[in-house]
Amino acid sequence: MTSKVLIGGEWVDSQGTDTFHAANPATRALMSKEYPISPWKEIRTAVKAAVTASQEMRRWGGERFAAFLEAYADAIEGRVDQLVATAHEETALPIEPRLRDAELPRTVDQLRQAAEAAEEGSWSRPTIDTKNDIRSMLGPIGPVVIFGPNNFPFAFNSIAGGDFAAAVAAGNPVIAIGHSGYPGTTQIFAEAALEAAQQTNMPNGFVQMLYSINHTDMMSLPHEKGVSALAFTGSKRTGLQLKENADKSGKPIYLELSSVNPVIILPGALQERADAIAEELVTSALMGAGQFCTNPGLVLLTAGPETEKFIADVIDRFKSVPSSTLLSGAVEDSILQKVREFQECDATLLTGGRVDEREQGYGVENTLMRVNGNHFLASLPLFQTEIFGNSTLVVVAEDVDQLMQMITALEGQLTGCIYSAMDGSDDEAYDRIAPELRTKVGRLLNDKMPTGVAVSPAMNHGGPFPAASPSGVTAVGMPTAIERFAVLQCYDNVRQNRLPELLRDDIDDNSCWRNVDGGWE
Amino acid sequence: MTSKVLIGGEWVDSQGTDTFHAANPATRALMSKEYPISPWKEIRTAVKAAVTASQEMRRWGGERFAAFLEAYADAIEGRVDQLVATAHEETALPIEPRLRDAELPRTVDQLRQAAEAAEEGSWSRPTIDTKNDIRSMLGPIGPVVIFGPNNFPFAFNSIAGGDFAAAVAAGNPVIAIGHSGYPGTTQIFAEAALEAAQQTNMPNGFVQMLYSINHTDMMSLPHEKGVSALAFTGSKRTGLQLKENADKSGKPIYLELSSVNPVIILPGALQERADAIAEELVTSALMGAGQFCTNPGLVLLTAGPETEKFIADVIDRFKSVPSSTLLSGAVEDSILQKVREFQECDATLLTGGRVDEREQGYGVENTLMRVNGNHFLASLPLFQTEIFGNSTLVVVAEDVDQLMQMITALEGQLTGCIYSAMDGSDDEAYDRIAPELRTKVGRLLNDKMPTGVAVSPAMNHGGPFPAASPSGVTAVGMPTAIERFAVLQCYDNVRQNRLPELLRDDIDDNSCWRNVDGGWE
Repeated sequence: MTSKVLIGGEWVDSQGTDTFHAANPATRALMSKEYPISPWKEIRTAVKAAVTASQEMRRWGGERFAAFLEAYADAIEGRVDQLVATAHEETALPIEPRLRDAELPRTVDQLRQAAEAAEEGSWSRPTIDTKNDIRSMLGPIGPVVIFGPNNFPFAFNSIAGGDFAAAVAAGNPVIAIGHSGYPGTTQIFAEAALEAAQQTNMPNGFVQMLYSINHTDMMSLPHEKGVSALAFTGSKRTGLQLKENADKSGKPIYLELSSVNPVIILPGALQERADAIAEELVTSALMGAGQFCTNPGLVLLTAGPETEKFIADVIDRFKSVPSSTLLSGAVEDSILQKVREFQECDATLLTGGRVDEREQGYGVENTLMRVNGNHFLASLPLFQTEIFGNSTLVVVAEDVDQLMQMITALEGQLTGCIYSAMDGSDDEAYDRIAPELRTKVGRLLNDKMPTGVAVSPAMNHGGPFPAASPSGVTAVGMPTAIERFAVLQCYDNVRQNRLPELLRDDIDDNSCWRNVDGGWE
Repeated sequence: MTSKVLIGGEWVDSQGTDTFHAANPATRALMSKEYPISPWKEIRTAVKAAVTASQEMRRWGGERFAAFLEAYADAIEGRVDQLVATAHEETALPIEPRLRDAELPRTVDQLRQAAEAAEEGSWSRPTIDTKNDIRSMLGPIGPVVIFGPNNFPFAFNSIAGGDFAAAVAAGNPVIAIGHSGYPGTTQIFAEAALEAAQQTNMPNGFVQMLYSINHTDMMSLPHEKGVSALAFTGSKRTGLQLKENADKSGKPIYLELSSVNPVIILPGALQERADAIAEELVTSALMGAGQFCTNPGLVLLTAGPETEKFIADVIDRFKSVPSSTLLSGAVEDSILQKVREFQECDATLLTGGRVDEREQGYGVENTLMRVNGNHFLASLPLFQTEIFGNSTLVVVAEDVDQLMQMITALEGQLTGCIYSAMDGSDDEAYDRIAPELRTKVGRLLNDKMPTGVAVSPAMNHGGPFPAASPSGVTAVGMPTAIERFAVLQCYDNVRQNRLPELLRDDIDDNSCWRNVDGGWE
């Protein structure tokens, strides 16, 4: 029996005939449960319901959305065992510590941070000019369609992750399109979301979920009148196609696509603490089989004996750490394919680069490649493509000049790290490199690997195109991420009783920061 | 002799051979001064110089940009007579009160507000998470190319207007592309800008100006590596083509395109104060020959005897107010053309619709058209096209239901106004209409015409696509407009002495608001 989809506040049979099964990555076997690929007609029904919900919720204060988000976080916590077991089966990500102790708490924490921001209201930046009687604040943009990635079944799930939390906190209905890698996990979230929506009296079209849609319909979605904004985390190819369609219809789309997250290790740092850095690098590079958006895929070093020793050490560590199961056969194929392409352009395979025969499931031996600065620069479009998985490319530059050339040539990245000596011996190189790297990355790190994206108000999980788009905004971190799903709404000479509460002269609620005539109150 | 262009801190001969002359709208005659159309090679030279300037200014604090903006405002004030005389000759806009008493003060005021915001720094929203040692703030995006519109030779001039002030306040170099309607005015601004840049020791490529570029080169500009962002105010057709190119290269472009600015006058308001509303409408519709982005081009009424009386009154007023000179022959042609198209779709011409023979210059008699609700809905794509100039379309709806249908069918607009009775008799209709209109406009007004865009921190001069793009941001109003030319830059574990000053633990300057661990300080 094909699973039902969540549309208009109810679980209904899909009207389509196409279906799919998810695979168990640990066994490479398809699982028995059948999920529908929703046809266009069904998608349109969901959009219509979302528009109706949007109209109903227009004048609601943030506390209504906060109540839902809180109830939803609780409902998720009531399903932890079920979620963790299902996600483990569908993704092969370890139950502990990854799913149960890290990703699930992070997910409910995000929902609760979003609830707090929605309740409090400062994120909407109420601004009042009493002299001109002009007032403005950020208001909901309208129905948001969210696509989640393969690598975070909880924290970036289209119906439970950061984009979902942000879109709801801004006051919008969400149409979540599930990822085909973990439909069962998404179903459990959707059940919890519906329960919470009913408990908190949200309208029927407020939270909806379709397991999958076909490529053509996906590309038509931005043109659908009732869709106001989209969010997509996943492959660059699909993301850019979706962006093209969103751009044509003048709608905002928030993308997180790909990043090699360069880690630059300056010679003084290697001299001081090569061992510790090798340990940090290997842990960060191989964690979760390297399947993180901020995985360090590119390590930049300058030539010298310390560098050779460091690389030899990293090779040993890559060999000794057992590889983890990959999310899918597509991830496995892609690593092997890219390794071949890199080799064809003069990269040397130092270790790995083949299917891990010790594994029954999808898996590639931990893979380390090396190329020199000249070859790197000669085949740059290739060498800065992300290899999603447990693979890292080490580039040895002739000197700091060539390092600078390489950084200048990089495209936009989510993160960039510089390891430098504590004794100041790398400071000159740092001062040359950092300002250029700053323009290429969303988050600049010192002496720290890029994996581990704290849910912090100061976080930027985004970066210059094509790592993300638009360049200036973040997908992680409340309340900043919420603004993406809002528009600036101005009220000019509007009568007091017709204003949103946060813009009135007298408000009961003093918890929200407002900018009144230039100062924050 | 062809005028020189401002590139790399110097006035240099253009390398191109194509030139243009501006016309005097009051005489329809071309003026003698010749201006160059810069070739691609020259454009690239400017972009290169801007990139170099951008690199040099990366670590500068806001006070450097504030100093320039202040000096520039002063330099402009030293050239008022020259600016006003030249702009009057090139645009036929009245010297008093428009150019000297309104637009020029507004322009220097904008520059000074931008200076204040840059100096103070709160616009960049420094955010510090001490627990995780993650810090972020908005930083400069890089070289910005600005195209200005035909209708504001000062306040939206590409080298002096709001976009320029905002881009500079964010710390970016600007390449200004002049408008071909008022090259002499732009030249004077560029001279003042260069003087101020030299006084305040800005790098050579910081402010540059080309009078004109050809269409093909304009469309190539977004693809040029050194260009980081663009701003365009002008025709929808050209703006959308430019957007398509910017979108392809993943670069932000800020557009202000077209808007009919619907004014809805509810029956109770007409009963209460038809005379006063007619006076306000006519003043707003015909001011500056209606050549404002927020000109009320569409008036929506419900059928009834009061409405007929009101329309008759407006016709009389349109006839009795002398028409003003139009900016160009293109504006004149476009009005006449659109009037014909409207008539072909069952609009009735109530007055005007032909060249004003009393004028030696470009001019059309004040034009008022009328159509009923059914015809309006039947030819909607046409009836919501902007007629840029002294022309307004009155639509008489059968009832409030049809009014709602019309509003629902509208595309994005900069503004939307509702006039309603003070005695509450229109409140039911208002409560139905306003939430829908809210989603269609950037600025919602009560009992007030849309012209007159206050430079206020609470202003939204923007709106849903295709009136503007992206939908959520404003082109007028400091400091909000500045954010458009900035990106979120995050610092993770970065050593104190390497942080921008506003993100350090200890700062001297206490004037800037910072968000530290969730609260504003």
